[in-house]
Amino acid sequence: MRDVAIIGVGLTKFGERWDSSIKELMAEAGLAALQDANITSKDINAIYGGSMTPGRFIGQEHVAALMADQLGLGNIPATRVENACASGGSALRQGYMAVASGIHDIVVVGGVEKMTDVSTSEATTALGGAGDQEWELFQGITFPGLYALMARRHMHDYGTTEEQLAAVAVKNHANAYKNKYAQFHKLITIDEVLNSKKVADPLKLLDCSPITDGAAAVVLAPLEIAKKYNDTPIKIAASEQASDTLRLADRESITSIKAARISAENAYRHAGVTPKDIDVAEVHDCFTIAEIIAMEDLGFFKKGEAAKAIEEGRTQINGDVSVNTSGGLKGCGHPVGATGIKQAVEITWQLRGEAEGRQVDGAEIGLTHNVGGSGATAVVHVLKRAD
Amino acid sequence: MRDVAIIGVGLTKFGERWDSSIKELMAEAGLAALQDANITSKDINAIYGGSMTPGRFIGQEHVAALMADQLGLGNIPATRVENACASGGSALRQGYMAVASGIHDIVVVGGVEKMTDVSTSEATTALGGAGDQEWELFQGITFPGLYALMARRHMHDYGTTEEQLAAVAVKNHANAYKNKYAQFHKLITIDEVLNSKKVADPLKLLDCSPITDGAAAVVLAPLEIAKKYNDTPIKIAASEQASDTLRLADRESITSIKAARISAENAYRHAGVTPKDIDVAEVHDCFTIAEIIAMEDLGFFKKGEAAKAIEEGRTQINGDVSVNTSGGLKGCGHPVGATGIKQAVEITWQLRGEAEGRQVDGAEIGLTHNVGGSGATAVVHVLKRAD
Repeated sequence: MRDVAIIGVGLTKFGERWDSSIKELMAEAGLAALQDANITSKDINAIYGGSMTPGRFIGQEHVAALMADQLGLGNIPATRVENACASGGSALRQGYMAVASGIHDIVVVGGVEKMTDVSTSEATTALGGAGDQEWELFQGITFPGLYALMARRHMHDYGTTEEQLAAVAVKNHANAYKNKYAQFHKLITIDEVLNSKKVADPLKLLDCSPITDGAAAVVLAPLEIAKKYNDTPIKIAASEQASDTLRLADRESITSIKAARISAENAYRHAGVTPKDIDVAEVHDCFTIAEIIAMEDLGFFKKGEAAKAIEEGRTQINGDVSVNTSGGLKGCGHPVGATGIKQAVEITWQLRGEAEGRQVDGAEIGLTHNVGGSGATAVVHVLKRAD
Repeated sequence: MRDVAIIGVGLTKFGERWDSSIKELMAEAGLAALQDANITSKDINAIYGGSMTPGRFIGQEHVAALMADQLGLGNIPATRVENACASGGSALRQGYMAVASGIHDIVVVGGVEKMTDVSTSEATTALGGAGDQEWELFQGITFPGLYALMARRHMHDYGTTEEQLAAVAVKNHANAYKNKYAQFHKLITIDEVLNSKKVADPLKLLDCSPITDGAAAVVLAPLEIAKKYNDTPIKIAASEQASDTLRLADRESITSIKAARISAENAYRHAGVTPKDIDVAEVHDCFTIAEIIAMEDLGFFKKGEAAKAIEEGRTQINGDVSVNTSGGLKGCGHPVGATGIKQAVEITWQLRGEAEGRQVDGAEIGLTHNVGGSGATAVVHVLKRAD
């Protein structure tokens, strides 16, 4: 197996992009990534595309072939990957495998979701497809409802408070404020989170990530030739994925995501690092409780201690570990299929020292954590500077 | 890269399966494949799932994790692949790559679609997502309409007749009549096809594949250990994929599918065979014209000569090349995401000599040809007996 590097990244502005079609979003992110990699379309050997449910949002499936088409990549293999909210991370893993194995050399991995063309209730229903349609959604529970159950149990078992949940949102909005690509440029306070409308008790509106349009793309190459394209290649030191039951009620625990723990353990072992070595991490804060659980699943803090650590500021930029410097799903936005790729884009910028206004000092090793549904899929990547 | 073999196959009865949920279909095919491979769930290292648009058909995304869950495979990586009607073939290619590269040893690849829970018009709309939503479907053309354009041009350029189109359907219904898994067990005549209702001139109802529920699964292993599980492993001698523009109007030609030609050329070269070496082929006859074009794209007949050859019976069982012995999409049915995997199941049975009642004499080398949309994706596999 060959080492694999990220040699180019591209991102669209996240938000309500009513000015742009899905094709235009793909082109905006994809062409930015090709330009960043100093590469032309004829050098690309394959493309993977992450997207969760473009069929329900805009009536369009077959989006990886559409990406190849929009980017003028010719007749290369194009493959869409869908693993709910982890579609981007899973697509990145397939791209990594394709290059690591030697089957392809230069691979583009794109992620996209165009979510704001439908009503919020239609979007919520579409996103429900990430869970067990028959035993969860059909019975009336929504995705905020599933995460509310996880939050309530976490509060019961570990004394986690609503203020601590709110602290995640406050931090991530503060980070997003410094990111020009973010959906929200609005600082918020603990009180504003606590006083926002209840969505699924104890989660309020400002505990929830938004509905977002956006796209992200990365270009992968064998590490041995990466410097031909880019002076600061970022090595993918580990790419790990695991699954679990779709139905939350079938899990051993609902205060931890087993698929994330397994992915993280395998990723740390494969990369030869420990949680303490991670300088910067983009994690899947679809709801504030999800970031608290992620901190524990990733081993950054002991079980039951992450909420307090976040409240104390230990995950702010240049804290013990800098978490969601992009603003995360909460502040930067969550165009579902793009999120896992956007995480890799942000970590690449951080490790290159290009995260303008939100740069983590001396960041050398980063991590991405992308979760599908309530945890039936998790994907963890460890990235390292390779120059 | 390691050689890869199919060591187990499983299939559900295709048809209107109102008795079974998507989970039950997955379990039926998946457990049959595990049993056929003499393997238990704990030996499986990863799963790929092909499905086109389960979100629009039944509100369920995240179906690969659901497959792992239903089959009791534990926390293994589970990845859904979507490339419209080529979702199954593309999933098989990803599974092949995972084993060939050495990243995983034993991999299950499943395909499923549960299509009959919605109305035919809703199904037609959902399937339209395989094309260019903005420039084709939104303008009012349907998928039968796109293939009707291809048929009309083929008739204009090569003198292909409506009787020759009909001959494809007659042959495939005759083959399906001998396949207990097929949706249709009804022999039809040329006149019945010609007199069936027009769908999109020149295509009539009996020129079109049906709406189908069904699932299929294969188990893959490194060839070097395949005999541990199965006396007659089937080697995947080539797995190739290519893409093209989504929009039919952007193509160089609409009487040929360029992505299929590229995939086939690469597959023949990689497998070290020529079209003449293929004993049995499962091809993507979503419409009768598609099988005629496939015969030409695959090099079985010269351009413009396939229609006559089919009419003369040269693609019947034990003809020059035995095509769609399962009944194809037309006769066996077309549960979209399952089709590419079902093709591999049928070829495996043929190469093992287990295709009861429709066995091709002495079949040694087989091929599958799976097309997404009007040709924006094509996947070709060459399979060989390896014992």
